Amino acid sequence: MPKIAYVNGLYRRHESAFVNIEDRGLQFADGVYEVIAFHDKKLIDLTDHLNRLEKSLSELSLHKPKTNTSLRLIIDQIIKRNRISSGSVYKQVTRGVAPRDFSYSSTLKPTLIVYAKRSQPFTIKSIQKRHIVISKPDIRWRRCDIKSVSLLPAVITKQSASEVGADETWMCDQEGLITEGTSSNAWIISYDKQLITRNLDFSILPGITRQRILKLARKLNIEIIERPFSINDVKTAKEAFYSSSTGPIKPVVKFNNHIIGDGKIGEITKLLIKSYMNYLDNFDVE
Amino acid sequence: MPKIAYVNGLYRRHESAFVNIEDRGLQFADGVYEVIAFHDKKLIDLTDHLNRLEKSLSELSLHKPKTNTSLRLIIDQIIKRNRISSGSVYKQVTRGVAPRDFSYSSTLKPTLIVYAKRSQPFTIKSIQKRHIVISKPDIRWRRCDIKSVSLLPAVITKQSASEVGADETWMCDQEGLITEGTSSNAWIISYDKQLITRNLDFSILPGITRQRILKLARKLNIEIIERPFSINDVKTAKEAFYSSSTGPIKPVVKFNNHIIGDGKIGEITKLLIKSYMNYLDNFDVE
Repeated sequence: MPKIAYVNGLYRRHESAFVNIEDRGLQFADGVYEVIAFHDKKLIDLTDHLNRLEKSLSELSLHKPKTNTSLRLIIDQIIKRNRISSGSVYKQVTRGVAPRDFSYSSTLKPTLIVYAKRSQPFTIKSIQKRHIVISKPDIRWRRCDIKSVSLLPAVITKQSASEVGADETWMCDQEGLITEGTSSNAWIISYDKQLITRNLDFSILPGITRQRILKLARKLNIEIIERPFSINDVKTAKEAFYSSSTGPIKPVVKFNNHIIGDGKIGEITKLLIKSYMNYLDNFDVE
Repeated sequence: MPKIAYVNGLYRRHESAFVNIEDRGLQFADGVYEVIAFHDKKLIDLTDHLNRLEKSLSELSLHKPKTNTSLRLIIDQIIKRNRISSGSVYKQVTRGVAPRDFSYSSTLKPTLIVYAKRSQPFTIKSIQKRHIVISKPDIRWRRCDIKSVSLLPAVITKQSASEVGADETWMCDQEGLITEGTSSNAWIISYDKQLITRNLDFSILPGITRQRILKLARKLNIEIIERPFSINDVKTAKEAFYSSSTGPIKPVVKFNNHIIGDGKIGEITKLLIKSYMNYLDNFDVE
């Protein structure tokens, strides 16, 4: 069955879904995106993702190409036409097509792309895998809170993990503090059972799954501390994991060749995975 | 006459020249580019531009899509098919099309785009115009020496100039020192006739026109100092200008509402423009 993508009002076969060479997304990385996971025919945290998309658009003075209602209809169509029951939906909005110029006119018509990817459904077994993380300097721009497609620095940094057989890179700011993963938020759990993740600032993306995990942890009466932590904090942590919409919770057992805790998936991490799976199985479709 | 662009082996009408929605240039800003000015049917500093393109590709482990000879043939074709005698040629190379993933395979086939833009020929009169510059913090990534399409921070910063009726923004690093313009190198001339421009480092692009101006200034026995300079250095400068391939030398008369020198185009700036025009009229085609 051919994969179908939506581009600017048309549903097309994926291989024939195009944007013009003067799309500002291609020439200037002038665009934003969202990835929403889709589990058992339900879009996870859809409203939060749409709200964040709106925030990203607003931060860059990008026009909203569709109302949330229309966007939801397109997402539903994409899922239906591709006959997907679990996977993810990718949405990208760029400032549109214009003769190349750093400055832009406010009258441009934005480009909207939506497509879906099939993947195995989340299960406790599929999530509870051991991951290896390395650290690298954070070389990105100073507004990483905006979910833009200006992702080259993250690509380079992620590739450095792949090249040494690691799964993710956690990035380190100029003070030696971890910001986040290249496409995930970073978490540690200390020996006194504190769940620690960096507070929201310009250097990290406000992860939707990060927010969901915080809510679940509160319900579980886990002590939460939102603060920056160092490479050394990771090395002396009992547990560590990273989170993302398509992740959603990836246990870390090795960091820069250092074994985390006893090298097994930690108890609190397991508890959070179980709680997250329980949330997925029971949340009401928005 | 329709505009013709080259994309991956095919010459197409500009409006029908496309890349796939999963091109990594569009999704990750995973690509590089060059803009070569074309004057009186001659490509300016072609070899230097091709060398810099090769350097950018190499820094990002991107495959070179064509030999320089083939690339020159494509550029020549584009100029010929568009019947252009002055303007510029834009080339972009992306890592190619692949299912979306931050990590990449080394076997991807790069995307190559080449097109041309017609513009008025450079003349002393067309260059010698007064420009207004403002300053903003440099929010870009830490490898601005690579000419990548990860340009969103520059777009935002340039737009802030347009919005207040200025022509360019000079960016300021965390030490309060000017790095460069959003798509140009920054220069000042002190009252003791020193030509000052930032030394090459990770925070600025090694401009081809910057290099050319340095050569011409040496020939004119102008004292050159390559060092970072501050906002205050600009305010107390006698002259200022910025350079780029399509600029090529833009005299600055106002900076952050402060008049530079006597508010007119400076003598050394005029001398450099004259010398640059003389170079353009006499250089041999490479």
